[in-house]
Amino acid sequence: MTSNPRVIFGKRPAPHESPKVGEHLILDKSRTIDLENVPLNGGFLTKTLILSPEPAMRERMRDPSIPSYTTTFVVGGPILGFGVVVVVRSEKEGFKAGDYLYGLTVWEAYTVQPYVDGMFLLSSHPHGHRLMLAPGRINFKPEEWAPGTFDMDSLALQVVPNPNGLYPLSKYTSIMGTPGLTAFVGMEGIIDGKEGETLFVSSGASAVGSMVIQLAKLKGMKIIASAGSDAKVEYMRSLGADLPFNYKKVNYGEFLQKNGPINAFWDNVGGEALDAALASITAYGKMAICGTSGTDVLPPSEHYRLKNAYLIMKKCINIRGFIVPDLIPQYIGKFFEVVPALMAQGKLRSQETEVEGIENAPQAFTDTLASGHEKAGTLVVVVARE
Amino acid sequence: MTSNPRVIFGKRPAPHESPKVGEHLILDKSRTIDLENVPLNGGFLTKTLILSPEPAMRERMRDPSIPSYTTTFVVGGPILGFGVVVVVRSEKEGFKAGDYLYGLTVWEAYTVQPYVDGMFLLSSHPHGHRLMLAPGRINFKPEEWAPGTFDMDSLALQVVPNPNGLYPLSKYTSIMGTPGLTAFVGMEGIIDGKEGETLFVSSGASAVGSMVIQLAKLKGMKIIASAGSDAKVEYMRSLGADLPFNYKKVNYGEFLQKNGPINAFWDNVGGEALDAALASITAYGKMAICGTSGTDVLPPSEHYRLKNAYLIMKKCINIRGFIVPDLIPQYIGKFFEVVPALMAQGKLRSQETEVEGIENAPQAFTDTLASGHEKAGTLVVVVARE
Repeated sequence: MTSNPRVIFGKRPAPHESPKVGEHLILDKSRTIDLENVPLNGGFLTKTLILSPEPAMRERMRDPSIPSYTTTFVVGGPILGFGVVVVVRSEKEGFKAGDYLYGLTVWEAYTVQPYVDGMFLLSSHPHGHRLMLAPGRINFKPEEWAPGTFDMDSLALQVVPNPNGLYPLSKYTSIMGTPGLTAFVGMEGIIDGKEGETLFVSSGASAVGSMVIQLAKLKGMKIIASAGSDAKVEYMRSLGADLPFNYKKVNYGEFLQKNGPINAFWDNVGGEALDAALASITAYGKMAICGTSGTDVLPPSEHYRLKNAYLIMKKCINIRGFIVPDLIPQYIGKFFEVVPALMAQGKLRSQETEVEGIENAPQAFTDTLASGHEKAGTLVVVVARE
Repeated sequence: MTSNPRVIFGKRPAPHESPKVGEHLILDKSRTIDLENVPLNGGFLTKTLILSPEPAMRERMRDPSIPSYTTTFVVGGPILGFGVVVVVRSEKEGFKAGDYLYGLTVWEAYTVQPYVDGMFLLSSHPHGHRLMLAPGRINFKPEEWAPGTFDMDSLALQVVPNPNGLYPLSKYTSIMGTPGLTAFVGMEGIIDGKEGETLFVSSGASAVGSMVIQLAKLKGMKIIASAGSDAKVEYMRSLGADLPFNYKKVNYGEFLQKNGPINAFWDNVGGEALDAALASITAYGKMAICGTSGTDVLPPSEHYRLKNAYLIMKKCINIRGFIVPDLIPQYIGKFFEVVPALMAQGKLRSQETEVEGIENAPQAFTDTLASGHEKAGTLVVVVARE
């Protein structure tokens, strides 16, 4: 028997409360697993290599009465997040021992993954990447999700290339993972920016924001970017932002009025940032609404209330809220063709700081929430080296 | 010399003020025109047949400091609106005496129309309809409009079929005019509704709203529609709305919560209606933002402030503000193929009440603002019978 530690969701934090280690996030070291004999029931057994503590996980700790597209974490159950795992044993066709998988997985050392039915086959791509979505559903039908009922955990693992030392596995939590994929598909499918146009990105030092800045730079766009500390402002500048600013020192509206107009807006924040962008955007501007981190921990009654919505019509603005699966079918092939090469050429950069051991995972999550990118780079939990 | 009366914009009404005849709108009977000899300077002379007083004209009377896509009326100058004119003399290729034209024109009996450069040629259509836009501009480039600088008056006249008695000329102010065209291109290009889906349309008794209801009904959609009086509720029901309601009796949020969810939203109002629609719409819902009549006469500081904007991301909503020229190139051909036939079959209906003489035009406009559709039908000013 092998020890199989995991991280349990102990209790819901209050709306404004930061989750605490030992109270909301609890390390459970009591479990073991028989790696040779545990029943797979047609699924496959994986070993967790890397876990990515991400601010978006905080939202799944909210009270279930607050509407969002995701289900909430179950109190007493393990938490889930994006990570890289390797297949140990498999009863499922298409998965074999040694395959690297990336996607949502339980924060534990070993996992018997559920049977996966939904799958995109990307047969046109040389590596034959497979995206597997929505276990237990024959068809992946996002148009049927009602708010709050999309089971985030059903966004299952996809087979990804073994980097074979070309880049560290931790890049699957940044450039090669959900942040990079989100930025790439949103920039391709929604913003579609042109050289010389001005893009404003809120929370530009975040994992997604930092990728948006770099991808926009590669398109020749002028970039205005906001974040909440001077350290983040310098980080955004180092990534190529032309006009990075600290919204705690100069408010969104004031900065954009002085430095706009903007042609496009990538929003990770919502509220006041969105309102200022509506005021500053040119007619026929495009907005990719990717996150609402400014309000995610607040009950709706405490949200900032938008005053500039009437400009959507007056300026013929196109606004699209999206999550990454919406655009995966169209752009995943191009992503795998383009992004690893750009990373190899140093044109797409990210900084990660590795934290060793799942026992330090709860602290890594609370540190991520507290500091964002003020530290040297995004925290990544290394659960196991192969 | 022939008398050429016109309607002058005398003074800007205050934000909450209703324009008054003789103060804000003044009949000027002092002018004459020499129909035989007035210089055309390469343009053409038209005789006004029909003028359409429309609530949207109120917005052009606003203080210029309030942002919108249109320029404001000039105090002391004539007002403009949509209407039908007939060509009397022409020096411009493509226009000949007897041609019927529809579009924005000066509220006066005779007009020397400016030279028109922008033109869409719809050569594929048997009638060879021509849409002429943006006089003085070689190319029509809506993407270059900055807010407040789009000269509404440059939306010039287009040649339309002479109905030859098949339908009254006044239909060019409703089904065959901007309201019908707006509803048609928005339903085709943005809502793209499917049978069984639920559409909510705000201000459903308005000229555009009443067309949206009927077009949605033809698609087999279920229709929720709001308006501000019981008479309008009955009018919407007569057009095919399944769940018409008076928002002054039951508020938007309450009604939609009880009768939703909705799959799509056609907004003519903004503010509270938009907020309620955001709450009620399903994931991946579509919103066509066509008007903001709920706030157009208010300074931005008095607008309703949206609380549900965070749901744009949570539900992956697609929102598009638009005006009719945005979608004309794609859908004008289909419009002329489909709409006259539907009207002839009685499947698209509208009610107009004719008011005789340009001297009654100012009163017709203030009556339109005051009563909307509580009267028997939209008011149309007949300036001349051929």
